[in-house]
Amino acid sequence: MTTSSAHALRDLENPSEFIARHIGVSSAEEAHMLSVIGEASRRALIDSIVPRSIARSTGMDLPPVAGEAAALAELKAIAQKNQLLKSFIGQGYYGTHTPGVILRNVLENPAWYTAYTPYQAEISQGRMEALVNFQTMVTDLTGMDIANASMLDEATAAAEAMTLAMRSVKSKGMTFVVAGDAHPQTIEVIQTRAAPLGVTVKLANSAEEWLAALDGDDYFAVLAQYPSTSGRIDDLRADVTKVHGKNAAFVVAADLLALTLLVPPGEFDADIVVGTTQRFGMPMGAGGPHAAYMACRDAFKRSLPGRLVGVSIDAHGQPTYRLALQTREQHIRREKATSNICTAQVLPAVVASMYAVYHGPQGLTRIAQRVASYTAILAKGLEQLGWTATSTSSFDTLTYKCGEQAQPLMAKARGAGVNLRLSWNEYVSISLDETTTREDIALLWNVFAAHGQALPNFVEFENGIEPRIPAALRRTSAFLTHPVFDSHHSETGMLRYIRALSDKDLALDRSMIPLGSCTMKLNATSEMIPITWPEFANVHPFAPADQQLGYAELDEQLRAWLCQATGYAGISLQPNAGSQGEYAGLLAIRAFHASKGESHRNICLIPSSAHGTNPASAQMVGLTVVVTKCDENGNVDMADLKAKCEQHSANLAAAMITYPSTHGVFETTVKELCALVHQHGGRVYVDGANMNALVGVAAPGEFGGDVSHLNLHKTFCIPHGGGGPGVGPVCVVEDLVPFLPGHATSGLKSGVGAVSAAPLGNAAVLPISWMYIRMMGAEGLKHATETAILSANYISKRLKDHYPTLYASANGHVAHECILDLRQLKETSGVMAEDVAKRLMDYGFHAPTLSFPVANTLMVEPTESETLEELDRFIAAMIAIRNEIRQVEAGEWPQDDNPLKNAPHTAASLLTSEWAHPYSREVGAASTSTRANQKYWPPVGRVDNVYGDRNLFCSCVPISELA
Amino acid sequence: MTTSSAHALRDLENPSEFIARHIGVSSAEEAHMLSVIGEASRRALIDSIVPRSIARSTGMDLPPVAGEAAALAELKAIAQKNQLLKSFIGQGYYGTHTPGVILRNVLENPAWYTAYTPYQAEISQGRMEALVNFQTMVTDLTGMDIANASMLDEATAAAEAMTLAMRSVKSKGMTFVVAGDAHPQTIEVIQTRAAPLGVTVKLANSAEEWLAALDGDDYFAVLAQYPSTSGRIDDLRADVTKVHGKNAAFVVAADLLALTLLVPPGEFDADIVVGTTQRFGMPMGAGGPHAAYMACRDAFKRSLPGRLVGVSIDAHGQPTYRLALQTREQHIRREKATSNICTAQVLPAVVASMYAVYHGPQGLTRIAQRVASYTAILAKGLEQLGWTATSTSSFDTLTYKCGEQAQPLMAKARGAGVNLRLSWNEYVSISLDETTTREDIALLWNVFAAHGQALPNFVEFENGIEPRIPAALRRTSAFLTHPVFDSHHSETGMLRYIRALSDKDLALDRSMIPLGSCTMKLNATSEMIPITWPEFANVHPFAPADQQLGYAELDEQLRAWLCQATGYAGISLQPNAGSQGEYAGLLAIRAFHASKGESHRNICLIPSSAHGTNPASAQMVGLTVVVTKCDENGNVDMADLKAKCEQHSANLAAAMITYPSTHGVFETTVKELCALVHQHGGRVYVDGANMNALVGVAAPGEFGGDVSHLNLHKTFCIPHGGGGPGVGPVCVVEDLVPFLPGHATSGLKSGVGAVSAAPLGNAAVLPISWMYIRMMGAEGLKHATETAILSANYISKRLKDHYPTLYASANGHVAHECILDLRQLKETSGVMAEDVAKRLMDYGFHAPTLSFPVANTLMVEPTESETLEELDRFIAAMIAIRNEIRQVEAGEWPQDDNPLKNAPHTAASLLTSEWAHPYSREVGAASTSTRANQKYWPPVGRVDNVYGDRNLFCSCVPISELA
Repeated sequence: MTTSSAHALRDLENPSEFIARHIGVSSAEEAHMLSVIGEASRRALIDSIVPRSIARSTGMDLPPVAGEAAALAELKAIAQKNQLLKSFIGQGYYGTHTPGVILRNVLENPAWYTAYTPYQAEISQGRMEALVNFQTMVTDLTGMDIANASMLDEATAAAEAMTLAMRSVKSKGMTFVVAGDAHPQTIEVIQTRAAPLGVTVKLANSAEEWLAALDGDDYFAVLAQYPSTSGRIDDLRADVTKVHGKNAAFVVAADLLALTLLVPPGEFDADIVVGTTQRFGMPMGAGGPHAAYMACRDAFKRSLPGRLVGVSIDAHGQPTYRLALQTREQHIRREKATSNICTAQVLPAVVASMYAVYHGPQGLTRIAQRVASYTAILAKGLEQLGWTATSTSSFDTLTYKCGEQAQPLMAKARGAGVNLRLSWNEYVSISLDETTTREDIALLWNVFAAHGQALPNFVEFENGIEPRIPAALRRTSAFLTHPVFDSHHSETGMLRYIRALSDKDLALDRSMIPLGSCTMKLNATSEMIPITWPEFANVHPFAPADQQLGYAELDEQLRAWLCQATGYAGISLQPNAGSQGEYAGLLAIRAFHASKGESHRNICLIPSSAHGTNPASAQMVGLTVVVTKCDENGNVDMADLKAKCEQHSANLAAAMITYPSTHGVFETTVKELCALVHQHGGRVYVDGANMNALVGVAAPGEFGGDVSHLNLHKTFCIPHGGGGPGVGPVCVVEDLVPFLPGHATSGLKSGVGAVSAAPLGNAAVLPISWMYIRMMGAEGLKHATETAILSANYISKRLKDHYPTLYASANGHVAHECILDLRQLKETSGVMAEDVAKRLMDYGFHAPTLSFPVANTLMVEPTESETLEELDRFIAAMIAIRNEIRQVEAGEWPQDDNPLKNAPHTAASLLTSEWAHPYSREVGAASTSTRANQKYWPPVGRVDNVYGDRNLFCSCVPISELA
Repeated sequence: MTTSSAHALRDLENPSEFIARHIGVSSAEEAHMLSVIGEASRRALIDSIVPRSIARSTGMDLPPVAGEAAALAELKAIAQKNQLLKSFIGQGYYGTHTPGVILRNVLENPAWYTAYTPYQAEISQGRMEALVNFQTMVTDLTGMDIANASMLDEATAAAEAMTLAMRSVKSKGMTFVVAGDAHPQTIEVIQTRAAPLGVTVKLANSAEEWLAALDGDDYFAVLAQYPSTSGRIDDLRADVTKVHGKNAAFVVAADLLALTLLVPPGEFDADIVVGTTQRFGMPMGAGGPHAAYMACRDAFKRSLPGRLVGVSIDAHGQPTYRLALQTREQHIRREKATSNICTAQVLPAVVASMYAVYHGPQGLTRIAQRVASYTAILAKGLEQLGWTATSTSSFDTLTYKCGEQAQPLMAKARGAGVNLRLSWNEYVSISLDETTTREDIALLWNVFAAHGQALPNFVEFENGIEPRIPAALRRTSAFLTHPVFDSHHSETGMLRYIRALSDKDLALDRSMIPLGSCTMKLNATSEMIPITWPEFANVHPFAPADQQLGYAELDEQLRAWLCQATGYAGISLQPNAGSQGEYAGLLAIRAFHASKGESHRNICLIPSSAHGTNPASAQMVGLTVVVTKCDENGNVDMADLKAKCEQHSANLAAAMITYPSTHGVFETTVKELCALVHQHGGRVYVDGANMNALVGVAAPGEFGGDVSHLNLHKTFCIPHGGGGPGVGPVCVVEDLVPFLPGHATSGLKSGVGAVSAAPLGNAAVLPISWMYIRMMGAEGLKHATETAILSANYISKRLKDHYPTLYASANGHVAHECILDLRQLKETSGVMAEDVAKRLMDYGFHAPTLSFPVANTLMVEPTESETLEELDRFIAAMIAIRNEIRQVEAGEWPQDDNPLKNAPHTAASLLTSEWAHPYSREVGAASTSTRANQKYWPPVGRVDNVYGDRNLFCSCVPISELA
């Protein structure tokens, strides 16, 4: 033991311990990796890669790093500034009991939350089964033909329904009629979305206005809330007939729990149904993340936005899940896509589907009946106290016109520890939910009772109470009839079902997921722990601001820190996915031009290498996409860009670039590019997808970007959750700050309106990024960026004799990812990049990004969190596979029968008594190359995508076909 | 929807929902099962099985059932009655940071906590690797030759060290010398344990007394605490030489964290080292559960108590872990066993070992150096304030003689939010730990500073501070040099290591574990959630009583409820394993007889079918075991019992029975048996192992039992944790209540002293049983018992044509388990029960209890939590295996080469290009009989037990041998 010095003592205190937990490469390993790359130090490596012109002038001004325990304590103190009153606000957000077995084994389990979007079907069968359960649950409860695998929130789902309807109906009207008694945040997001598309939103604030609007000829669709936000249950059947007579579409925003008791929209011919599944087990979390849903009639399905899981077959003819109809999506259709959405809300969707599996149709009905009965009892008691609800029908919500008594009632309620809802300053609404108790009802009576007034007695109402659901609207049809919803009602059974599904999938808890452009890094436990703290989880998004001081502080600090990381002046955390951040960013640019009287600026330059989301988002704000070329090195062709700037100078709105580029290179011309665009009056949008190569090294807000969105679920450690939730903050320079999203429903006005249902979007996962930044500090974040770049270059160099890297900078280096070129293999061996991707599964790896941005390549992004051991294991697998390809090239194995073409290999396919392949079973299993006793067995063989799209089937597989 | 009635509303409210979550069999399934058994109703079935003579006269008086959310809320309110002051009490319990990745993925993960004791080696490789890491950690840190897989707590470990020494040394003295500066609870438990064995405990309360004692010739062993409980670090080297000169053994109770800095006991020739690993990541939890440890010299190893994991080879010659030297243990050696311990503290041991893996030798040393440096700085500052510690040496603890200022200082500290330790009313001790901060030290200075006295300044001490560890005692040797302790320091790496290990094991989260006598039922998430609440987890066991009111209420309520369940008058929750409860129960009987002046009563009758623990415990309290016979139906031979009662009437102390019997039968003579024993002055001990067949149906305290122990980790849902923690409350009738365990260290005096280090034993897991009872209520508990019996009878009936049940009541029924007789198969096929057990692994099942209580049988206990689907899956596997045996019987497969003899089959063994067995690969894998895509692959082939015991190796396997 050495004598302590102040320095030594600080080393013992080791406040930056977490940095070494997050970064997988130790300093000794780093030295080895640098020697392979041929650079003397990490500093030298970075200097040789990041253009001097954009290197940050200053460090990030962040608080001194805190250890895990200290950071958790600090965040807990912030969380405790939220006040937990019991909420009866409703308005789309309700109390719910997350079953413990789902909380612990799905929501808090890395096998679920660290998984990626299920593009690679064979290693994603577990979560796709859960998503098919979700889709079945939604189609059954809504009575519709088909449902997708979730939407971002109910409000954006409603906005997407509007555009889906616009694409699909014969009516050419440009008006969208919306019932005024829909949730206000839904109306607000629809209005935001409608404006740039030239759609007029006609609000019908009374029955008369509604009927009049429906008699018009100028609309393409209508939307009604069912039950309405004030609680009324309308019979919409005649309305639907009328709307269909106008060749327009009928959209219903429906409460899924209520639909267990109500005639579902599918039974009165609604065209599109949207809503949220929040109350199926997901905590309110100040507004998100929750899985919204969208269901539609069969005729609309090929225009349906979002992810859709379908059933196909694998190479052995077994039913196999995979993403269906991907040709609708932005990564293929670009500006012609049905939506710019990339992610869904998979993790919350899995929770909701498991909730349905656990409760089953009888359990859900019981919960709904209890809510409806309690609501009826509450109404009876309030009647006894002299209060008459505004409607005679209701499921869970009662509204009272209180006039001047409204404010005192709200205050009295708060004094009693509960929140009610106030509308138009004189209506008070009460929404009950799964968590409501008899004591709550007594408390609510007490709130409404005048001083000294005798209180109703609950037991008086126990007999003969009739839910307030109109007889004609009571559901008679069955739902959730598939056996999966009646098989796992014991906790033991449920636990095993959850485990069995997750075991089929490969997530970060078992191996690296080297997905280029997706940044699959560590989602540390200390980051995850706070999100299920009650102080964060149980806050209603529309609780009074003074009860949300903890969230306000979290929001403020996180935005300040992200400004430091990006060099921007202002940030909004509201967008609940990268696509939404991108959309919000373009909205800001559009609004800025409009504020200068330059609404004619409508040209958006986008390089050919861009993510599909870029053009898809541009079209959503009414911009016309002009594609600019890339040169043979994959860089933006500056000459072409210049020419197009000049050509469109008068109308140039924006240029959208990704930096470092989607080709994995730090282009040296980025500063020049920004200046050029500015010179022609345009604004520069820097896509934040590759921010993991920039934090602490260069800042888009410094080198010329005007707007960026971040993906907190990439760079800032929010887990991918199997395909969501995401968080996509939008960051802007000073003069664009006034055009960040607002949220009028919550009292936050802005020039562009709301882009998400909740003011803070997916608020409940923001603590993850807060913890990450707090525990890494400025030095740690920069170290992470540098290690991400180091690891990518290490892989590129180690594999260069096997798979050349397609694009590199002049000195042969890449950024934080590298594109491995497999194009020449087709000719020599018939092997395609997809075959290598599938073969990696046999070796226990998730494939790198396949054929993006260049067809028949693999883009590898290791991130800083992978250990050298894991990098080497991946490299060894890639080399072993290359040697297998060489055996094909040498003619030892036929081009159509070799371990790559037959990959992935299931255990069953290797154990058959007959073995007709030219390679051995051991080779097929790649078992000698995988870690001892840790073989991952793909549960299915290669999926047949074409079969699936030809025979589209998106619900639970009938048991007869599984036999 | 039907009109609500009061009844219907209560059905909607469904407060007993949890009962249906816990019990796997629905009412429709129950009807089917009853029809198979041939009984009309569950009531009729139970009436035909439980003897009328013992049926409970009254129901259990328990609170009305509460739903999961309501029960959690109620328990939270109780938990919040504990006050969380920061503790500097030390005395064997310290603050520690449980790394998040270990908290979530081990301690809160059912894959770890629902596993069973690793008797079946092939499906327990993951946790055995973790335990070998534990053993290596202990041997390395203590410098000893061998360590076991954990002990129950430091105090019982010290007591076991005493008896181990007594068995092992040449000295025939009957005195055990104990340093008075050992932890007081350790001294207390040693005294309890010594008395019945005739051992004199000589306390040496000063250096002089210690030296004088060591000069004596009457002792067989000595024990010293290192560092001592007051913080002193003594150089024990000369003492060891002296003790060895007397042919006696030297036992050291050592702090494992301190040993990273101190010369380890093994380097000064200590014989046995014990201690706790609590501060390696396990919360204090008011005293437990934590893994204690015991290490010894090679010469002592065959007498070592407890579980020991060793390395052997499997059928393919690969290194394979398995329990070593089982011939030492009670289930084989009975009253000649080295100890009565059945369980270890596996789950806490896994946590501690993972903590060492995560931190590695450098990380542990850093933590220890920080603690030592802070302690030195604290001492310097206190010196500046005029306080001089009682010793110049210390690692983490400082003691000050405060005289009359002691009490005011303690009060001032409490006022400042911290607990110090008070000894002998005038000494105040302060122990620092991993969680101590600079702010804490400043606060402590402030507590000790007189009013207006200038406070020390931390930064003044930062330079040149020297830990207070004597130069001669500073460790120079390396430890934790195996690569496993230097491979998983990133969180990503750690997460994958944890997952990889757990994936090798089969626990309740994947399949049923039908272990007769072990009651592997659901451990519900809602039961598990409270144990990691800070209000329960972060309480020091010796915090003042007024800070532990929550635990006091939990204790009181749980004891009252367990009295209802058992029919007894008094209960102590202190015993932290079934074996300890049994020991405490026999102590009570012994003390009772002594109180009547009948100390000569020393005969304990035990039927031949008893658990091995019974005789092993009896010998520990000095009773002489007399075995009584069983008849051909497996029942106690009443004639033999009567004869032996009469023969030993004058000296009869007790009879120990298990009810229902270990043969799985409700014997009709139990009431008569109890009366007979009472008539001869003896007391009846009813082993509570099979309590899951009794709760709500019959009560041992009503039908004649005087004492029972329960296994809360069986009947009352505490998970087995892979082999611990257990909780073994001891329950007694009225006149034995005064002889329940006490805990003088905590101020609770009793006639028999303490049996555990902490007053509430494994206090932190008691919330599990509290939740279970609270959510089940009287009806639910009874329903569970009845379903457990139903399911056992269903299996017995379904399998009767394949494996006859060995013992049944006259009407052919069994209790809650059934013994399948496989003895005849040896002759017809060469197949042994063990082969069926191993073959079940291929089918994805944990084997039933093997060859207990009858050799070459399998005892099946399904419990109430298994679903009918799982029962049927198990039955199908058993029938499929029987059909395989028939193929051997028919000569289709040789007796020495068939799927049973070669079981379990690893994937590697099935994929070899050469296949020389007479059955196919698919048959080997049993893959067509297991659920689609859910095949469990045993990671190793059949273990060679003999090889392992002949080549005993109990540390991490060198990497060279793993290649």
